[in-house]
Amino acid sequence: MSAVSIHHPLEGLFHPRSIAIIGASKSDRDTGWVGRLLSSGYKGKIYPVNPNAKEIDGLKAYPNIRDIPGVVEYAILNIPAHLTPQAILDCAAKGVKFVHCFTAGFSETGTKKASRLEARIAQIARDRGIRLLGPNCMGIYCPASRMTFNADFPQKRGPVAFVSQSGTEAMRLLFLAHDINIYFSKVISYGNAIDLDAPDFLEYLADDEDTKIIACYIEGSRQVARLTSAVKKCLQKKPVVVLKGGSTRSGAGAVAFHTASPTGSLASWDNFFKKTGAISANTMDEVADIIQTLSRVKPPKGRRVALVGRGGGIGVIAADICERASLEVPSFSNNTRKRLSQIISEVGISTRNPVETMTGMSGAVDFYLRGLPIVDEDTETDIILVQIAIDIYGGRNTDLTPEVRDAAYALCATADSLKKPLAVVLFTGGHPKATKEALITRRILTKAGIPVYSGVESASQAISKVIDYYGNDSGKAKQGSIIYSCN
Amino acid sequence: MSAVSIHHPLEGLFHPRSIAIIGASKSDRDTGWVGRLLSSGYKGKIYPVNPNAKEIDGLKAYPNIRDIPGVVEYAILNIPAHLTPQAILDCAAKGVKFVHCFTAGFSETGTKKASRLEARIAQIARDRGIRLLGPNCMGIYCPASRMTFNADFPQKRGPVAFVSQSGTEAMRLLFLAHDINIYFSKVISYGNAIDLDAPDFLEYLADDEDTKIIACYIEGSRQVARLTSAVKKCLQKKPVVVLKGGSTRSGAGAVAFHTASPTGSLASWDNFFKKTGAISANTMDEVADIIQTLSRVKPPKGRRVALVGRGGGIGVIAADICERASLEVPSFSNNTRKRLSQIISEVGISTRNPVETMTGMSGAVDFYLRGLPIVDEDTETDIILVQIAIDIYGGRNTDLTPEVRDAAYALCATADSLKKPLAVVLFTGGHPKATKEALITRRILTKAGIPVYSGVESASQAISKVIDYYGNDSGKAKQGSIIYSCN
Repeated sequence: MSAVSIHHPLEGLFHPRSIAIIGASKSDRDTGWVGRLLSSGYKGKIYPVNPNAKEIDGLKAYPNIRDIPGVVEYAILNIPAHLTPQAILDCAAKGVKFVHCFTAGFSETGTKKASRLEARIAQIARDRGIRLLGPNCMGIYCPASRMTFNADFPQKRGPVAFVSQSGTEAMRLLFLAHDINIYFSKVISYGNAIDLDAPDFLEYLADDEDTKIIACYIEGSRQVARLTSAVKKCLQKKPVVVLKGGSTRSGAGAVAFHTASPTGSLASWDNFFKKTGAISANTMDEVADIIQTLSRVKPPKGRRVALVGRGGGIGVIAADICERASLEVPSFSNNTRKRLSQIISEVGISTRNPVETMTGMSGAVDFYLRGLPIVDEDTETDIILVQIAIDIYGGRNTDLTPEVRDAAYALCATADSLKKPLAVVLFTGGHPKATKEALITRRILTKAGIPVYSGVESASQAISKVIDYYGNDSGKAKQGSIIYSCN
Repeated sequence: MSAVSIHHPLEGLFHPRSIAIIGASKSDRDTGWVGRLLSSGYKGKIYPVNPNAKEIDGLKAYPNIRDIPGVVEYAILNIPAHLTPQAILDCAAKGVKFVHCFTAGFSETGTKKASRLEARIAQIARDRGIRLLGPNCMGIYCPASRMTFNADFPQKRGPVAFVSQSGTEAMRLLFLAHDINIYFSKVISYGNAIDLDAPDFLEYLADDEDTKIIACYIEGSRQVARLTSAVKKCLQKKPVVVLKGGSTRSGAGAVAFHTASPTGSLASWDNFFKKTGAISANTMDEVADIIQTLSRVKPPKGRRVALVGRGGGIGVIAADICERASLEVPSFSNNTRKRLSQIISEVGISTRNPVETMTGMSGAVDFYLRGLPIVDEDTETDIILVQIAIDIYGGRNTDLTPEVRDAAYALCATADSLKKPLAVVLFTGGHPKATKEALITRRILTKAGIPVYSGVESASQAISKVIDYYGNDSGKAKQGSIIYSCN
């Protein structure tokens, strides 16, 4: 199935040839495990297990996993917590290698009884040589094998792996990324991590040739030293972005009742980022922005931004935001300014940097075609950031739609010929119809490999962090180019 | 026309009984000054002035302003910069009190010649007793008099005044606000500020009873001491939010070619905020969020947030974000937790805080009706922040639309009975159709007076800043209530 890592012990987690769902229920594609796998097009065998059903979603159901005639490589537990120890014993008897315990109600409840139950299933799995995923998690999404935990996840494969202790955050990142044409190799929602933990997945992903970028949402780990080593190992080959959940007192309090992970001190995680060089993010939107930057922004030669976009105040605020994100917005060279002034006839328009595009959306199109190549040759700047502010172009009027599309196509036409990295901020405003149109325009741009951000703040912060990452080690800058080209 | 300030010398700036447009052109409602005023429904007399036209947009045109038979109180200059001195002399001869110089091409070009021309028109205006707005600006929007600089601006009046040195930022804030049902008393785009400057407008707005909240976008001022006094005067009566453009070296460089204002040092502006107690913002989105918070969030008793929303990881990240914004997310009281556990039957769901709503969108509706009143009575928290994450509820599926609307109506139904302030984060994702539906839902909520933010970061930062503002002076907290009730 996958071209790589076929002998890695965790390969069976992503490419099992058969899956039993213990506690399968009559269900639809949205909420049932059988329905999800069927609608995703999972190619292996699916065995529903339910003593009270003869058939589920058109498949024969078995009273117990032991009754299944064929080999079962992977089992999903969707049963009450107190039944999980026996179910894992049954899995062991059947020779199952991987058990995904979707079931919740363990240490995250805060009760001693539930924690004891959790310890017991961990012990059973260890004793019987079963690798346990969870409990209290959504499991695996792997478009290559069509494993999924949500029927709406795309079937398209991509270069990003996401290791997430939260199922909802996994969904969030998948959908955020999908909307900007970024796809995944593997997503792992791993919950309470009583056996398989972030270091296991990262050690695997370091060598996974289908994965070029790794993102993590981690609330804590019982194996921080091993996690640090695993992240370092990954970073020798590919970038790693980490959102550390529970990095404040309030957040750590919330973690106790989510995955009950040992969150560690803020200082210890600061140390983790310093030691490893992993890219730190604070929100899932930021994770998506950083992934996009790694995928689509050519490594710039420096931190000097050329700002292009209509609106004097918009340019001023953008320049302030860039500098706060440790970027600079210096003046263009005299030669650039002279050349720009030859194409800008309007009075009161700055050619210094930020440079304003000409009047209206058609003026923007004109600038993208004639002005961007001039900005591209400027010696004083390293990266071009184009702001498309459809709101101030009259973007509330959906008659503008064809013009916005024209602007997108003009940008696409010019982008390929630019030597400098290009990033686009598409400010959509909040008008329902106009925003919808702007998001369709974003798809056009991102499909062409142009990175699009929702604001100058998010763009400049992501770009600055990625420049930091490249700057940490010149070897990575080279790696950055490789990642860029994989888009 | 307006109920207040009728004797203030600047009243004629917002309520002129006649306007001449010098350099009026045949035009449509989008780009022409005559068309804009006509489509806005301006009730006074409009006199187009153009020596080459007999009629513009159905109105008789005059070769010179002196040829107009009636009284002209206000003139808009839409002519090349070199013609402006004579035009202002003509205005003076006609007895015009206010001249709005839309024309650009003055000190912002950076040439000595243009700066001399700017000084000259300032001198002419001063000598002839004309108050000059601009140059290089969009002028006045005042729904009470139907003056406007954009035909798409709403005719509805509201309690917010915006003093903006940038016309595009004025448009941006107006549209951002419109989409969340926030409206304006007066908006002033004042550009290079060679005569009328921010302190003039603020001194007027301090006493303007139509204005309850003041926002400013200021790049610089030649009268910082007077500006500080004016802001202090306003703050005795109403909140003032200031976005200072050009507060970094990059931004200041951009200002030089936008309005050519003296930007001042970063330290001097830090000092301005310390001395005045004005609320500082960094982006126009933040300005809109702060205005919304002032308008719709009851002054909370403290900084302790009750977080409500589906998704364990989402709650953890939100708690971290709140604490980074100097808010807290403590555990609910034991009594609250006990009561919540009685309505939440699902396993693995935390009642600590953050609390998760029940399964699916219908579970959210159920929680809004039965759970929020319990959270409202919790003794350990001061403000309720509800996250509606339509993405993880399957919000990419537009079949969900009716359910999302139901959730909005359920929130509206409960909101009125809550004693604690309520704020909502509506995370829309980036799917074109789903986002459109979410933005329509946002309209429903904001129309009912419920503040809606696009993320936990923006919500927590705005709330934290407004709490700081109330905390600065107990007198203001009272004022805050008054503002709140004006929504």
